[in-house]
Amino acid sequence: MQHPKIPLAQTVIQLCKVKNIQNIVISPGSRSAPLTIGFTNHNYFNCYSIVDERCAAFFALGMAQKVQQPVALVCTSGSALLNYYPAIAEAYYSDIPLVVLSADRSEYLIGIGDGQTINQPNVYKNHILYSASLRQNLENIPKNTNDNEPAIIKNIENKLERFLGIRQEIKEENEEEINMALNMAIYKKGPVHINIPFEEPLYEVTEKLYEMPKPVEVESKLKKMDSVDLEACLDDWNDASKKMVLVGVLPPNSVEQKWIEELANDNSVIVFTETTSNFHHKEFFPSIDKVIAPLSNGEFKQLQPDILLTFGGLIVSKKIKAFLRNYKPKQHWHVDSKKANDTFFCLEKHIEITPNQFFSEFLPELTHVKKSNYKPYWIQVKQHRQEKHLKYLDEIQFSDFKVFNAVLKAIPKNTSLQVGNSSAIRYTQLFNLKKTIDVYCNRGTSGIDGCTSTAIGFATKNTKQTVFITGDLSFFYDSNALWNNYIPKNFRIILINNGGGGIFRILPGNKDSDNFDMYFETKHNLTAKQLSEMYDFEYSSAENESDLQKQLDVFFDKSKRPQLLEIFTPRTVNDEVLLTYFDYIK
Amino acid sequence: MQHPKIPLAQTVIQLCKVKNIQNIVISPGSRSAPLTIGFTNHNYFNCYSIVDERCAAFFALGMAQKVQQPVALVCTSGSALLNYYPAIAEAYYSDIPLVVLSADRSEYLIGIGDGQTINQPNVYKNHILYSASLRQNLENIPKNTNDNEPAIIKNIENKLERFLGIRQEIKEENEEEINMALNMAIYKKGPVHINIPFEEPLYEVTEKLYEMPKPVEVESKLKKMDSVDLEACLDDWNDASKKMVLVGVLPPNSVEQKWIEELANDNSVIVFTETTSNFHHKEFFPSIDKVIAPLSNGEFKQLQPDILLTFGGLIVSKKIKAFLRNYKPKQHWHVDSKKANDTFFCLEKHIEITPNQFFSEFLPELTHVKKSNYKPYWIQVKQHRQEKHLKYLDEIQFSDFKVFNAVLKAIPKNTSLQVGNSSAIRYTQLFNLKKTIDVYCNRGTSGIDGCTSTAIGFATKNTKQTVFITGDLSFFYDSNALWNNYIPKNFRIILINNGGGGIFRILPGNKDSDNFDMYFETKHNLTAKQLSEMYDFEYSSAENESDLQKQLDVFFDKSKRPQLLEIFTPRTVNDEVLLTYFDYIK
Repeated sequence: MQHPKIPLAQTVIQLCKVKNIQNIVISPGSRSAPLTIGFTNHNYFNCYSIVDERCAAFFALGMAQKVQQPVALVCTSGSALLNYYPAIAEAYYSDIPLVVLSADRSEYLIGIGDGQTINQPNVYKNHILYSASLRQNLENIPKNTNDNEPAIIKNIENKLERFLGIRQEIKEENEEEINMALNMAIYKKGPVHINIPFEEPLYEVTEKLYEMPKPVEVESKLKKMDSVDLEACLDDWNDASKKMVLVGVLPPNSVEQKWIEELANDNSVIVFTETTSNFHHKEFFPSIDKVIAPLSNGEFKQLQPDILLTFGGLIVSKKIKAFLRNYKPKQHWHVDSKKANDTFFCLEKHIEITPNQFFSEFLPELTHVKKSNYKPYWIQVKQHRQEKHLKYLDEIQFSDFKVFNAVLKAIPKNTSLQVGNSSAIRYTQLFNLKKTIDVYCNRGTSGIDGCTSTAIGFATKNTKQTVFITGDLSFFYDSNALWNNYIPKNFRIILINNGGGGIFRILPGNKDSDNFDMYFETKHNLTAKQLSEMYDFEYSSAENESDLQKQLDVFFDKSKRPQLLEIFTPRTVNDEVLLTYFDYIK
Repeated sequence: MQHPKIPLAQTVIQLCKVKNIQNIVISPGSRSAPLTIGFTNHNYFNCYSIVDERCAAFFALGMAQKVQQPVALVCTSGSALLNYYPAIAEAYYSDIPLVVLSADRSEYLIGIGDGQTINQPNVYKNHILYSASLRQNLENIPKNTNDNEPAIIKNIENKLERFLGIRQEIKEENEEEINMALNMAIYKKGPVHINIPFEEPLYEVTEKLYEMPKPVEVESKLKKMDSVDLEACLDDWNDASKKMVLVGVLPPNSVEQKWIEELANDNSVIVFTETTSNFHHKEFFPSIDKVIAPLSNGEFKQLQPDILLTFGGLIVSKKIKAFLRNYKPKQHWHVDSKKANDTFFCLEKHIEITPNQFFSEFLPELTHVKKSNYKPYWIQVKQHRQEKHLKYLDEIQFSDFKVFNAVLKAIPKNTSLQVGNSSAIRYTQLFNLKKTIDVYCNRGTSGIDGCTSTAIGFATKNTKQTVFITGDLSFFYDSNALWNNYIPKNFRIILINNGGGGIFRILPGNKDSDNFDMYFETKHNLTAKQLSEMYDFEYSSAENESDLQKQLDVFFDKSKRPQLLEIFTPRTVNDEVLLTYFDYIK
């Protein structure tokens, strides 16, 4: 097997292997040749080649979202690694492990006007768990000398020893830094950056595998809740008759079914679940906005919980955030092994274990189920809203709202659904999905910059079918996502094209001006037809209900190529339909 | 006229106006609404709407390259501004003024899990001239009270005064920061970042223009060379019989013709000009690589200068860098009002004035023209190379090399030529261009990430025709550049499609493996046909010499739409033709 001749490249690659980092997304470049050669020649690694680094990073993010292990990114020196930044920030706020391996020039070539050379170390400073700046080692070791030599040789030997000492020191320091970065990515779940200087020649190979670097293990102790804390929590929970659980972004099956049942059987507990929470029970409250959007102040008062328990990632619903900020619970506890956001300005406890650990410690200790009419009342409201919701669907014309209903209904069970930002995920939240559909969305930064790439990266690691629903701005923004050799045939894109950023029509701006059309909504006449042809997608389109139904009936069937369905909706109708909806379901 | 109601937005906009920052590139977003409303409602500003922020920033860079004044960028909060980063780094190293105006949430909403919220302040830390983090001002001033009131009112008044005092303090600090940033962009020629928090409501407008903020002027003294320095330089220059001038990236007409003539008339001076230098004289040496690539060590020794005088931006030619590092001049002087790179590890003087100022102070003081055979000898070499060059062209088959020859010859005079990275600019350097063609290329970071966007931004401000030559990877990388409503009809793209990153075939890697094709060359079968249709470009293509000539004959004529000519060249022939060339011209 061929290995890169540069020892530092071997060290990085071997430590990735020891740490089970198996998926490597590589963008073309010369400075990074030692890494590219090493990773691609090694059977252990699955390598992926993606030219546009912005897409490459989101692709890696999607993979890591699925495999729940770090994915590594390899790029050359210069602006390449800056293109990773949007995905790095997303990974940072979504707790997704990514390892950036950026090749760099030697230190003496930096800041002197050499090509493709920028100031790489620490470049992600605001949004990174760890930045390691490796040092280049001294090459050309003088040959060892013999002991039986006169003083002059002894002197050379001393120098040699010092030289070897420094080499050893740099080597150890580099290994330590790499270990630290990789461990951070693995245990703290987030992005890390390893900057690696390489000196020419870059393309040389050797059959020899150098001495194995020392992997550093992290002792991961199972944390437990502090018993005093636990007591206090139990007391408060037992006493309170209005407890609200709010669940944000969460991988499927994060909590055992028996704990879910217990939560569901408690009338003093309302569980609001976001679509991205993948947390289901018929007693829970998905479609948060549907329930709370029409509420009066009196009803908000009635809904206001004594205790708010949250877990999972960031919350999509603006309405629940506004509600809980205005009607603060007496206590807010957040359960997460890593961090707790004070989203509602009343965070009291950060319980630093996983939700499943928490429930397994907490729920068995509860002494009784508090008698309460809290949930039953709101279940009635939920049912009422659902009736009105269905009635509304019968009354309205073809529009984004109607399309989301039809599309979400048509998605087969046991599918993974990736949803784009931003109106796509907001619409999706208003509908009830099949329980066996997993839902994902980039809600760390909520950007439109890499949703398609993320969905494709995810799809490559998914044994089930992946369906991606997106709006038009988001889709065209990340059009390079389709420049990708790894898209599974069963991958599906549903593009809802309303000719611009429809979400701006829902915001309070002035909609009746040229400036609005151009600078906010950014109206356009693009379609995905040409891109589909260019990147070998099967393309179909619909612009009314019967067309759409016909397309959806066969869209998820087996096919020889991935498919894209573009649905054109009326730009100036969509916002009215949505805004009226929230009044109607009252 | 309508203005944003938020005072801070008005302050930013008014100061931009005072500082003559007239071109504003806006990406859609809600948080930035106060700025978008303000800029787009004001007649003074030329506003441009670009959705993909990566393209928007390179588009602004191209504009600023042309107008030589700062162009402002407006974006919303979240990952939007991270997408600017590749262009920011390019601007930083290319000394191009850009002003990023990023909207942000209020401080109390940062780091608590609110949507589209990242850690924006200082995010470009490694590559920015100045980062201003504005502070949000306190709103809701209590009404003023009357003097004839009892003590309790007096007390309120005191509080009010303190409150107004803080308000005033924040206001002044913000104005100072904005002034500082804008002045930096203008006088230091580079990117600056102003981060601006806005609180909802964001869309409210007023007819009232608040008090004008105080603009701060910078006293710009005309620097002169230190007289002792000048004397020393003159002495050394007068004495030396081998002086080399090397000119990097430079806007056209940076140096007066009379100084150019004087340099050209001195036999002891060789002037090597890069294609991007826009610095012409028949006695100069363009196509540096053509002259020096075939040299032996002895000839290098002969070419080695006593004094190396450099000015302009970064150097493309790797060969001249290698030569001057190995055969260091006794002295290296760099003339630039801002910075000096020690590119050849022998920088002795940084002369901190513009090249034109330097020559007007320096050349008139020279006492004599040193007798020397330095230039005459190398002029002969140059002529020899040119003969061989022409002969070689007759002998070779259709390939990148031949295509560049035909294309560059066909470009009409008085055209602006934008060239992509990286092989496109390297090839272009090997040919003699018409003197009236201005040449531009993003050599700050030498990235492929925004060449098309830059060319289009440049074209919107160009009164002459703009032609853009690019390779395929670079073109497809920045495909969103074409999603742009401002492309002039006379804009032309020449896409040389060799099915991958041809430059990797010229580098020393192992070309005969699948891994090479996939991870280095990143082979593909894409064409620009569909993108041309999608974005309303007239499309034509060529794959042999006669096709090409036919297309080129009419390609620059007036047309109703911008045009793209795609030239397919044989992937596996190009590298051989180029590598053989350097031997052949010996």
